[in-house]
Amino acid sequence: MKERLLALRQMVRQVQAGTGMVAALAEALIEAIDLTEPTLGAWHCFDPEYLRLQARQLDARPHKGRLHGLPVGIKDVIDTHDLPTGYGSRHYEGTRPASDAGCVAMLRAEGALIVGKTVSTEFAFVAPGKTRNPYDPAHTPGGSSSGSAAAVGAGVVPVALGTQTSGSTIRPAAFCGIVGYKPSYGLIDRTGIKVLCETLDTVGLLGWRVADVALVASVLAQRPLEAQAGTAAQKLRLGVFRPVFWHEATPAALAVFERALDRFRAAGHEIVELPDPGDFGALMAAHTAIMSWEVPRALAYERLGDGAGLQPRTYENIQISPVTTAQVYDAAQAVACRERALWKEAMTGLDAVLTLPAPGEAPLGLSSTGNPVFNRGWTQLGLPCVSLPAGHGAGGMPLGVQCVGAMGADASLLAVATALETVLGAE
Amino acid sequence: MKERLLALRQMVRQVQAGTGMVAALAEALIEAIDLTEPTLGAWHCFDPEYLRLQARQLDARPHKGRLHGLPVGIKDVIDTHDLPTGYGSRHYEGTRPASDAGCVAMLRAEGALIVGKTVSTEFAFVAPGKTRNPYDPAHTPGGSSSGSAAAVGAGVVPVALGTQTSGSTIRPAAFCGIVGYKPSYGLIDRTGIKVLCETLDTVGLLGWRVADVALVASVLAQRPLEAQAGTAAQKLRLGVFRPVFWHEATPAALAVFERALDRFRAAGHEIVELPDPGDFGALMAAHTAIMSWEVPRALAYERLGDGAGLQPRTYENIQISPVTTAQVYDAAQAVACRERALWKEAMTGLDAVLTLPAPGEAPLGLSSTGNPVFNRGWTQLGLPCVSLPAGHGAGGMPLGVQCVGAMGADASLLAVATALETVLGAE
Repeated sequence: MKERLLALRQMVRQVQAGTGMVAALAEALIEAIDLTEPTLGAWHCFDPEYLRLQARQLDARPHKGRLHGLPVGIKDVIDTHDLPTGYGSRHYEGTRPASDAGCVAMLRAEGALIVGKTVSTEFAFVAPGKTRNPYDPAHTPGGSSSGSAAAVGAGVVPVALGTQTSGSTIRPAAFCGIVGYKPSYGLIDRTGIKVLCETLDTVGLLGWRVADVALVASVLAQRPLEAQAGTAAQKLRLGVFRPVFWHEATPAALAVFERALDRFRAAGHEIVELPDPGDFGALMAAHTAIMSWEVPRALAYERLGDGAGLQPRTYENIQISPVTTAQVYDAAQAVACRERALWKEAMTGLDAVLTLPAPGEAPLGLSSTGNPVFNRGWTQLGLPCVSLPAGHGAGGMPLGVQCVGAMGADASLLAVATALETVLGAE
Repeated sequence: MKERLLALRQMVRQVQAGTGMVAALAEALIEAIDLTEPTLGAWHCFDPEYLRLQARQLDARPHKGRLHGLPVGIKDVIDTHDLPTGYGSRHYEGTRPASDAGCVAMLRAEGALIVGKTVSTEFAFVAPGKTRNPYDPAHTPGGSSSGSAAAVGAGVVPVALGTQTSGSTIRPAAFCGIVGYKPSYGLIDRTGIKVLCETLDTVGLLGWRVADVALVASVLAQRPLEAQAGTAAQKLRLGVFRPVFWHEATPAALAVFERALDRFRAAGHEIVELPDPGDFGALMAAHTAIMSWEVPRALAYERLGDGAGLQPRTYENIQISPVTTAQVYDAAQAVACRERALWKEAMTGLDAVLTLPAPGEAPLGLSSTGNPVFNRGWTQLGLPCVSLPAGHGAGGMPLGVQCVGAMGADASLLAVATALETVLGAE
């Protein structure tokens, strides 16, 4: 895994520097996927011949884009006009959208090599796909961006697109030992992505390094998000937030987290404990209510059909809940609005908030993609989040640290994450 | 037009009351469309045999839905799995989406008769389609919901779905002498609708009467939006807002507006002049900047292609503007946020704000769908708006009054609109 990653990274660097051919990189990718895919199951659709064709076209381009030859995996809930898009569902198997999602079109325009479609849970919701954890195939890779996280974690692609509505980018990133980045809500256009929940859905990025996700996000957001030089040297003020469900974390996750804090302190950064500025429990309840109202409306076509081709677990979970009335939904949005204001205030003077990205290592088995309890509140606040690999548990499974930034302060958060990544010595 | 409308309304009532057959109503619709369509050009797709099939199925249903047999036209930017969806563009001619938009699925589940797809400007943006005004074919019906407004205005369907990003529901409603309703931003799920601008796009409804749009909106929003009995008897406090561009209104539009105010006063309602609580000019500029940033991103696939199949005017207008930087966009969102708070405060104690829905009658010619200057500010505020027919100009073209409500107060606004509709004596 490590050697493949290093070799591919070298090739990607050469292509980006103009000293390597995309065609050669494509062959290395094909070999890596052939080797890993039987165990990993990261790809919903991968066509070697089509990859070769794209590579030849990129090599022939007179003007190289900012992402020239950069291999990118695309989560299967994101439309591609030239590759089947199944939204993680047998119901949509073989569907060919009439256009690319806006984000895919922007990647292509800058010369990205679209490697294929990665496995998603059905509609990026609860029912898992076939993907296994690159560190141990007996464990889940997390989800819903399962294939994107596993492919990046296995060293097969340097970066992949995901989405996050609860914890679908940050959690699988932590489980697969890679960097996950959920931008501020609204920063990246979502056109052409299967809607799960309009007020929460966010394009996410999974990558080997913070620099990888920052580069791709810069193109998608059309803003300069790459870390500014020199930020790493700066002394940071970091708030540690231990939410009410902190006791749900495993001893291994807590040990890795505390060791990371020690290393940040040793690197000269200031660590302060951040009390809950509002009511994180109420915020979590608001997230539950908002999803419970919006998901059955967004998936109305699937809900009102006979459920044919849908996983029973999906069909069950997209039904309308009698508990979540319009009044409950409106009250939840009011809570979210109040919490956003309180967190804005609380984060003043902090460079980032540090917390866990998941309760622990990737759980054993493929029947669940794990618990998003450490993600839902942040997604509801709309704040940018980065998960960094920070160590391993006893069984060798990855564990991480999550950094949360202020609304819209994505460039600053990515700079902080770059500095902390250096401290953690992640390769 | 008037007789057809009355006859169809009678049939719709009978079907809804369970005393008429949907099959008979379908035959009447087919006849009405055959008669009007050669001049009107309201339909992008209309298949009489498919309408008959749907009608037979509805007649055979053991349980009748809340919209049993209600004929509804669907704007062509809204996905239907069984009817081609061209997004108003030759580029997408014949496209068959894999699913229904959420709103269409919800209509079908309640027994609506989906009559066909109505003509939209290309991508609900600037380039007009073939539709003509039902009052005079030499004039535009307005847009972008051109076919929906024209079909309802011609008395062919009682209600149709549209969308609004600038003034695409309210303006064509005013131009075609019908009721237009743009709900509060976020009230109705937008899944499966071609995105033009994520933070502004809103599902709109066009109908013969306020009751028609309120009934359909109740189903789509899954909230009770039908006017409460007795509201009409209440004394209303209405604020008249004359924005900085009030002088752009035509004398005929102003005369109809002032006469409407007189009639509201005569009916016992209080009319007060409402000063600008903020800076409506800045709000309009914010709307321009926000569309200018978001539209090229949402239409990235179309923008980054070669423009084949697109109208030149569309292709030109979806290009990235060097003027609208991320800083300009962020500043515009901040202005919008500030204005929302000021208007919330200003509308306290008012039952609704009254203003014009358009500068005047539908302009001559089909090269433009008219000026959305009287709509853009309200869409940017996200507030619910209803346009009511209020009279005619010298040439017999319709003119209207626009009622604007507080954020989320859609049920209350529709009750006010029902009361004012009664005063205006609209049939």
